[in-house]
Amino acid sequence: MTHAQSSTLPEKLTVLGSTGSIGTSTLDVIAQLGGRSRFDVMALTGAENVTLLAEQARALGAKLAVTSEDDNYQALKDALAGSGIKVAAGRSGLHEAAEMDADWVMAAIAGTPGLEPTLSAARRGANIALANKECLVSAGDVFLRTISEGGGQLIPVDSEHSAIFQCLEPTNKANVERIVLTASGGPFRTFSREQMAGVTADTARAHPNWSMGLKVSIGSASMFNKALEMIEAKYLFDLEPSQIEVIVHPQSIIHSMVAYTDGSVIAQLGCPDMRTAIAYALTYPTRGKIDVERLDFTKLARLDFEAPDEVRFPALRLARTALERGGAQGAVLNAADETAFHAFVDGAIGFLDMADIVETVMDRMNHGQSAQTMEAVLDADTQARAYAREAVLQKQRAA
Amino acid sequence: MTHAQSSTLPEKLTVLGSTGSIGTSTLDVIAQLGGRSRFDVMALTGAENVTLLAEQARALGAKLAVTSEDDNYQALKDALAGSGIKVAAGRSGLHEAAEMDADWVMAAIAGTPGLEPTLSAARRGANIALANKECLVSAGDVFLRTISEGGGQLIPVDSEHSAIFQCLEPTNKANVERIVLTASGGPFRTFSREQMAGVTADTARAHPNWSMGLKVSIGSASMFNKALEMIEAKYLFDLEPSQIEVIVHPQSIIHSMVAYTDGSVIAQLGCPDMRTAIAYALTYPTRGKIDVERLDFTKLARLDFEAPDEVRFPALRLARTALERGGAQGAVLNAADETAFHAFVDGAIGFLDMADIVETVMDRMNHGQSAQTMEAVLDADTQARAYAREAVLQKQRAA
Repeated sequence: MTHAQSSTLPEKLTVLGSTGSIGTSTLDVIAQLGGRSRFDVMALTGAENVTLLAEQARALGAKLAVTSEDDNYQALKDALAGSGIKVAAGRSGLHEAAEMDADWVMAAIAGTPGLEPTLSAARRGANIALANKECLVSAGDVFLRTISEGGGQLIPVDSEHSAIFQCLEPTNKANVERIVLTASGGPFRTFSREQMAGVTADTARAHPNWSMGLKVSIGSASMFNKALEMIEAKYLFDLEPSQIEVIVHPQSIIHSMVAYTDGSVIAQLGCPDMRTAIAYALTYPTRGKIDVERLDFTKLARLDFEAPDEVRFPALRLARTALERGGAQGAVLNAADETAFHAFVDGAIGFLDMADIVETVMDRMNHGQSAQTMEAVLDADTQARAYAREAVLQKQRAA
Repeated sequence: MTHAQSSTLPEKLTVLGSTGSIGTSTLDVIAQLGGRSRFDVMALTGAENVTLLAEQARALGAKLAVTSEDDNYQALKDALAGSGIKVAAGRSGLHEAAEMDADWVMAAIAGTPGLEPTLSAARRGANIALANKECLVSAGDVFLRTISEGGGQLIPVDSEHSAIFQCLEPTNKANVERIVLTASGGPFRTFSREQMAGVTADTARAHPNWSMGLKVSIGSASMFNKALEMIEAKYLFDLEPSQIEVIVHPQSIIHSMVAYTDGSVIAQLGCPDMRTAIAYALTYPTRGKIDVERLDFTKLARLDFEAPDEVRFPALRLARTALERGGAQGAVLNAADETAFHAFVDGAIGFLDMADIVETVMDRMNHGQSAQTMEAVLDADTQARAYAREAVLQKQRAA
């Protein structure tokens, strides 16, 4: 461990969503970088997996453990009996966790439930390691304003955005020509639309390179993930829609790139392991020594690239539309996609219907709605979900 | 042009070796970034091509034009008659050029003749854009000490070292695990040793990706170029031999990479055009807007990698030996290679004989000779050339 690291690592940490995939990887990174002998863990939060949450809280000596489910309060209380660790639950518990004075907060609660606690932590000036997509996709304007007013640093954790963050030279933000988001292309990269029409959630979830949750796996297959990432990138890096390029790169080794005005392209590469991006978010602007698999270029042998097909993957076209329209269209795209995703997983609609539904809702709500307040964001979200449910019913009737 | 660039670009420039490949590219970059309306060009130097040198000096309003050949003095004087541009020639002329008070000096005089003027410019504290290999390969200790004492910045221009320089985060120099130098593999990448034994200089000079001078082309075919770059990298980035990896990457799109302790690899990519690296050396730590071809990943389609074969390309093994032995072995390798190269081009020895000769001379001079003074460096250089000539004669006798 170098001196530079010692002087810049945060001291007090909170992990919002510590029992999920990003959360457990975050705790692994924290352990690798010194664990409780180096960090004060303020709060950990989970949902259903009370046993794991209690184990994590004991191992790291957390001050507070929170389950987002009120019903799990007693179980968590019992699991932590005698530990001296405070226990809380529900929305107020999450708020309490976010308000603990950690100087670094991993925001890894997925979906809309992650918005409120992440905003709370941002408001009080914590540095936010951001894994939640909705903060930027739905509430980008509000979230960036909150970060800026709070005075903390926003560090992306998503592998693509972490890559861009790593490739973005502080002295050259004004000299970025474009960014290149890489996309694996997912399991249906080579499928025709006819083939896609018949797929089920089980086939769609089999991602070639990363092990992920169901929502992310399906989003990878439909490329709605990449659509969300395009919108996130706009907010994170203050880009015009035309500066955001997507390239299909099936091996997922180049995680993304930044192209500068002098013709130089800086890329970040690595094995598909979220711990590198998480560690970078924790150690930024330095780096720690992390035990993950190293890239071996002789084993890699080759990296492939191909243009994304916006006819087979309309999500990319819809993202560009949302970026150009601005306002609440990001929130609308996200909410409609989430509703359509659930309908697809439930077998109510087909794979290709998801994009149709998102487009229908986006067009129906294309009247310049702003997203400058959380109220406006949540209104758009609620309205989009309702319209998406209507669109699902229409698809079912038509089928 | 952004404000950041305006504030950091150097004002007074000198180009040592302005009529060669790097030199003409440098003048193109200078023109693209504002030319004489933005920069004061102090001195330009060339050798035989007096007409081009005079044209360049007039176009940029240089204060001094120097030909390294005393015999060309009058021709240059005539070509610049009435221009008010001072003319000088020979070793003293080069010295005068280096001493002009440019704050940025492109060191693009190839070979041993480049050593003295580059050291002069470094001594007085100029920022040095380094294209000459010998300054580091032969005289690395002396050159780095001179740079450090002078107080200027050393910025590499070679595409591989520029790539590493671009990927090296100022906050993370202590967290570099290894660097990965990419090598095209040259025109004989897939040749057997038997095939290589029969090649001529004409076949060896046909580089697949870059247009280069004869020495560099042959060095690419034998991978002695890469050997020199490995030694340069050790000095430029203060690395152990084990931290320097070479990977064959036939497309030459990834120019080199830095692997960090957290598993992250940062790479610099671009079309094969030296102007990007030259521009970076001129604008560092910012970037300028340069008209070079942009990378198009859909056209690229794929990037390949393979392990270098140190049996077919012993230059890489010899570089590692030189790195491990240290002292004057870099100077010895370079001088023996240059002598062997000339013998190969003259048809006196075969392609594979070059590495044999270098190894013979390195082993013969492996007695811990230091390279801490220029005198010691030049002694080693002279001795190695003499031994190499002996080895060439032995090869000829044996043939």
